[in-house]
Amino acid sequence: MKFTIHRDHFVQSVQHVSKAISPRTTIPALTGIKIVASDEGVTLTGSDSDISIEAFIPKEDEELQLVEIIEEGSIVLQARFFADIVKKLPENTIEITVSDNYLTTLKSGSSEFNLNGLDPEEYPRLPEIEENNIFKVPTDLLKNIIRQTVFAVSTVETRPILTGVHWTLEDGLLACTATDSHRLAMRHAKVETNSGELEFSNVVIPGKSLNELNKILDEKDEWVEIIVTDNQILFKGKNILFFSRLLDGNYPATKNMIPTHSKTSVTLDTKKLTQAIERALLLSRDGKNNVVNLKAMESGEMEITSVTPEVGKVTEELDTINYTGEELRISFNGKNIIDALKVIDSTEVTIDFTGAMSPFVMKPTEHDNMLHLFSPVRTY
Amino acid sequence: MKFTIHRDHFVQSVQHVSKAISPRTTIPALTGIKIVASDEGVTLTGSDSDISIEAFIPKEDEELQLVEIIEEGSIVLQARFFADIVKKLPENTIEITVSDNYLTTLKSGSSEFNLNGLDPEEYPRLPEIEENNIFKVPTDLLKNIIRQTVFAVSTVETRPILTGVHWTLEDGLLACTATDSHRLAMRHAKVETNSGELEFSNVVIPGKSLNELNKILDEKDEWVEIIVTDNQILFKGKNILFFSRLLDGNYPATKNMIPTHSKTSVTLDTKKLTQAIERALLLSRDGKNNVVNLKAMESGEMEITSVTPEVGKVTEELDTINYTGEELRISFNGKNIIDALKVIDSTEVTIDFTGAMSPFVMKPTEHDNMLHLFSPVRTY
Repeated sequence: MKFTIHRDHFVQSVQHVSKAISPRTTIPALTGIKIVASDEGVTLTGSDSDISIEAFIPKEDEELQLVEIIEEGSIVLQARFFADIVKKLPENTIEITVSDNYLTTLKSGSSEFNLNGLDPEEYPRLPEIEENNIFKVPTDLLKNIIRQTVFAVSTVETRPILTGVHWTLEDGLLACTATDSHRLAMRHAKVETNSGELEFSNVVIPGKSLNELNKILDEKDEWVEIIVTDNQILFKGKNILFFSRLLDGNYPATKNMIPTHSKTSVTLDTKKLTQAIERALLLSRDGKNNVVNLKAMESGEMEITSVTPEVGKVTEELDTINYTGEELRISFNGKNIIDALKVIDSTEVTIDFTGAMSPFVMKPTEHDNMLHLFSPVRTY
Repeated sequence: MKFTIHRDHFVQSVQHVSKAISPRTTIPALTGIKIVASDEGVTLTGSDSDISIEAFIPKEDEELQLVEIIEEGSIVLQARFFADIVKKLPENTIEITVSDNYLTTLKSGSSEFNLNGLDPEEYPRLPEIEENNIFKVPTDLLKNIIRQTVFAVSTVETRPILTGVHWTLEDGLLACTATDSHRLAMRHAKVETNSGELEFSNVVIPGKSLNELNKILDEKDEWVEIIVTDNQILFKGKNILFFSRLLDGNYPATKNMIPTHSKTSVTLDTKKLTQAIERALLLSRDGKNNVVNLKAMESGEMEITSVTPEVGKVTEELDTINYTGEELRISFNGKNIIDALKVIDSTEVTIDFTGAMSPFVMKPTEHDNMLHLFSPVRTY
């Protein structure tokens, strides 16, 4: 194998596929990046079995020559430091040559790296996925969907299914739900399917996969194609393929958990609410589990408080934009509310309470594609 | 005590004095910030006994009213979260009131914090320093002196004296030296003294103190006044006092360690040398102690190499700008060279070698106020 390649494109692709590689793998070949030089260009692959990422660098892009293939072939190179090595090479062009025993030479200007490669035949094959049932999502929307749900997944492994985000598709409407059993985030979006009948439920994508996908999604690509199978999901960008294993098991039914009535409803300025809770959290971070207390008064005023006996107390007064219903005192995890406020993308929010011991719902006022649900915290 | 204060000035002063405060102190009062409101303004103090920082906020600065004193007094408030609290208060003005039992109220807009204070009488007094022997250094020069020496102090406590930077003053020339016994950095600078006869030697300032000082030195202040006593040093800016304990013990004599002759002398481009060593380090970071090999050939070429058997080898060719003397092969800690190259502030550097097993000297070519000394590493 021998080719020359444009450094900056190579660096970016190496960084992308490196995101899938874990140093803790039992398959030696998976500690490396697989590089394949073919007539069309160069393909890089990184994988930890759960996530696999394939990046393609075509020979030409927008009339700029990116790759010159001198001899086709393939190699696996240790991923460790490889991204650093290619990033620090001195010239715009890198020449990569594989000789006997998988010995690989990278040359760029006055710099030469001789690296011990691995047999590419030992690299596991990527899952083969039939491309029958495709739907399409604009890249910026997909990034939003991920950002607005994945923060709410569980980070503890006691209920593994909750470490993923639950996706369903019905009548062209994609519904994405994440919950750690204390709070829940739900996001809806219309998507384009190649056949109106495409439907699925109980697709649970690991939160970790979605976080990595979000990092490498390039907003310059307008669309991402998505293909779901029984145990895999594939995201296809222009020059990138992102495969993720799906989580096994049944996602809990969350629809019935969402209260449909309200005893107290308040509309608030998102920024002011955020800042008041952030200040209250300053005195409840330590050993108080971020518990913040709220008192909604019929006068339309709200009071947010937090106490740590040895340090002190904070009291925040907050005007409501709209207030209907009963007076209320409730305590909750303030950090969970902040997490949701950060992604709600609305200058005002409405919170509907159904009582001091019942879950409550927060929604944006400017759009209706999102809903956040929170459990209260008992403080006695 | 009762006063109102301009938030941004208060935040900055709280951040400055917080740098001296350690949560691991045996004196409870030192976990707090001492606040004194007097007729002239507000003084804040933070200390961990080794370092003490005093910041003063005058009543007025450039015709802007910063403080309004309603009642003089003093209090000690827990430093933990205090910087966050004042930073996150909603309005430009903060009102601080101390009532019975040191209970302190911070009010700003709709936000109110009630904090448990401590008795200010229990706060240790700052060292009293006679201001006879003062010398002055421009702030930007002092920041450079610190940056260009402190990186070379020892970080291990086996020889505590080497964790400090050694300062001497003679004939108006300040000489600052730091070494961890593998590399040494020395910086000279002319300074202004109030009496031509001010001299000192064996002043060893903890590296940690200098790092903290560097963070809070404000380049808007043109000069820093420096006062040295037997066991303390005081740095005086416009509205800030920085006290540091000096290290006990005798600093090793370093003058004789610096070779005065040279067998091989090379002049190199700083940037190209830096990049070549950085690439070589990519293959010597792991378990190789950053060892890099250099071969200087009479042709005027240099070769920098590094090998990690299981990963591979890197070879860097480097042109010399000037080359005199014998051919040479030497190995050294590449990271130490990079540390020095980062602060040398010269586009070219000259390295004088006295043999493969002897220390070597690196100097900037564009000025002569600095010198770096390195021990070679045996590789067999």
